[in-house]
Amino acid sequence: MIKKIDHVGIAVKNLDEAIKLWESLGLKVAEIEEVPEQKVRVAVFKVGESRIELLEGTSEDSPISKFIAKRGEGIHHIALGVENIEEHLEKLKEQGFRLIDEKPRIGAGGAKIAFVHPKSVNGVLLELCERTE
Amino acid sequence: MIKKIDHVGIAVKNLDEAIKLWESLGLKVAEIEEVPEQKVRVAVFKVGESRIELLEGTSEDSPISKFIAKRGEGIHHIALGVENIEEHLEKLKEQGFRLIDEKPRIGAGGAKIAFVHPKSVNGVLLELCERTE
Repeated sequence: MIKKIDHVGIAVKNLDEAIKLWESLGLKVAEIEEVPEQKVRVAVFKVGESRIELLEGTSEDSPISKFIAKRGEGIHHIALGVENIEEHLEKLKEQGFRLIDEKPRIGAGGAKIAFVHPKSVNGVLLELCERTE
Repeated sequence: MIKKIDHVGIAVKNLDEAIKLWESLGLKVAEIEEVPEQKVRVAVFKVGESRIELLEGTSEDSPISKFIAKRGEGIHHIALGVENIEEHLEKLKEQGFRLIDEKPRIGAGGAKIAFVHPKSVNGVLLELCERTE
């Protein structure tokens, strides 16, 4: 079951400058975290039941750095909060969605996450995300 | 004050096919609306307190059709739900944000909306949105 928009991930070149910018928009940064497996530094802003995550690549071969090199800064992915991610992935697979992650892995904040390929979702890099709050 | 992620707008080529796709992801379409001023047909999916809006251009000079011609299908914009949109726009202007709409206009569902230029928000086409529920 899909519960909410968990977060929207935005690729930025300079995280510290971007944090200032989004704070001047009226948001407040809640936490900053480094996720070494994804070569990314993340700033989290809470917005209602959702989050906005600003993402800065920590090396040139980070997926975020590659995205920016190709398309510039901008919205990178959208994550839907689900209840039972394994079951949800199984259903998507049965229906022919192209999964980047067939099994969930651990993302920022310790959430279980899995990505669905943009080719099967109208060009949208879609993440499923299950949190134990 | 920013209350929530109001919606994420996704540019699609064929709305009817995209609705089927997003329903097979586990969402249910709530309404379909045409917004002639923006040359767009919109399918709304409710997800928690937010919405996902699939957007199909209704003519070649629609902003959505142009976006797709240039970059392909994908996430087009993100909208933040605010309480007093006029006041919020005034504050953003004072801080040097580049506004596409200096005054709010009426969007899908009768909401007051205004766009901020992606050049001033890390490549993100940002919408402010005030609804009277």
